[in-house]
Amino acid sequence: MTRYKAVVEYNGTGFVGWQSQPCGNTIQQIIEKSFLDIQLSKIKIFGSGRTDSGVHALGQVFHFDYKENLDCKKVLLGLNHFLKKKNVSILSLKPINDNFDSRRDAKLRTYKYRILNRIAVPAILENQVWHVKKKLDFELMKKASSLFIGTHDFTTFRASSCEATSPIRDIILSELKKNNDEITYSVKSRSFLQHQVRSMVGTIKMIGENKWTLKDLKQALNSKDRQKCAPPAPAHGLYLESVEY
Amino acid sequence: MTRYKAVVEYNGTGFVGWQSQPCGNTIQQIIEKSFLDIQLSKIKIFGSGRTDSGVHALGQVFHFDYKENLDCKKVLLGLNHFLKKKNVSILSLKPINDNFDSRRDAKLRTYKYRILNRIAVPAILENQVWHVKKKLDFELMKKASSLFIGTHDFTTFRASSCEATSPIRDIILSELKKNNDEITYSVKSRSFLQHQVRSMVGTIKMIGENKWTLKDLKQALNSKDRQKCAPPAPAHGLYLESVEY
Repeated sequence: MTRYKAVVEYNGTGFVGWQSQPCGNTIQQIIEKSFLDIQLSKIKIFGSGRTDSGVHALGQVFHFDYKENLDCKKVLLGLNHFLKKKNVSILSLKPINDNFDSRRDAKLRTYKYRILNRIAVPAILENQVWHVKKKLDFELMKKASSLFIGTHDFTTFRASSCEATSPIRDIILSELKKNNDEITYSVKSRSFLQHQVRSMVGTIKMIGENKWTLKDLKQALNSKDRQKCAPPAPAHGLYLESVEY
Repeated sequence: MTRYKAVVEYNGTGFVGWQSQPCGNTIQQIIEKSFLDIQLSKIKIFGSGRTDSGVHALGQVFHFDYKENLDCKKVLLGLNHFLKKKNVSILSLKPINDNFDSRRDAKLRTYKYRILNRIAVPAILENQVWHVKKKLDFELMKKASSLFIGTHDFTTFRASSCEATSPIRDIILSELKKNNDEITYSVKSRSFLQHQVRSMVGTIKMIGENKWTLKDLKQALNSKDRQKCAPPAPAHGLYLESVEY
């Protein structure tokens, strides 16, 4: 048996997320099926973490074991031939030490969230950005995003279905940038709670709309109460950008 | 009669280009039809120039005349409601002086061309970039692009069907940038010949592949012979970025 590490990009639109489901329409299952498409044996892949329905990835990581040595470049091109029509693309594939675990060994995960802030609907970036018509106060949103930096109890910002043992997370980057009509949020942590990034972005946007103040955000964070969270931002603006080991 | 100026973004995929055709599947006709969809009278719109089948726009400009005063914000939202499913979006709409002509008055047009240079197929940017698998020599391509700056006879780089009176064009910006796997070309001129940008990009890419030298490019330009041009780059990497007046 040899263990392999792969990095994968996908457009989450139309998938019910990363993790295998009975319905079958998940990125994990589509990739597992592509191994059969190129006449390799049945395998099971292990992702660095789940992504929700509609969430994209620029650099999701998974590992798997295979009984023979693979010609990685050939396998990558073969898999992508079948994955292309599903908007999934393997970016790299290489052997790695037997102990490597894509989820457990991840040191840092980076997510990106894209907001298109203008009146006109997106013609090119449909399903790739959150379209917000109302003019947002960017400077105030920047201040809001910086309040998440550091170690906090994120109970307010986790889904009620979140199964993580602890709600404590250490945010080492929480930054907002602007380029013309597009606002991009970047956030880094060793790991995130379920719906955490979307909940944080939903709150930052409420502040940009002047519906919430910075004080409201601090109170929500301190309350440790899911009911105090703003509505989470939609899935289709969110990207798992990279996983570092 | 009042004259109006509009800026429009579109995804060119699936359209046979900007300019009206008997088949009807053009951006010009889709926009003209959307005026009827919101119960306005039949109009004819006049673009700043044609774009080819599959070419996108971030800032195409058109003008039109209307017999009544329009509530521009309402009209924009109404048109976009119908244009959204076609991946066309009106970015702005406003009254302008009666003499304004979107084509004739344009002082500067900017095009952008996006190349994704990596082995893996694009999962998210399908039809938005030219996917080139072979590793390109970026520094050499930068030198190549700078050779186009200035006033030249672009006979080599125009379609045989190009109807412009003169093949002379003055290129005031011709610049290449790199961001991870993506190479972006920007080019500015008062106007361009048919297929000029795609022909220039096709040539720059040949140099990046080391199939052509910088000397080959100079000779092709000086030859004033369409037969000496490299194969033009595909339409789906090209964007009409802006038109300045």
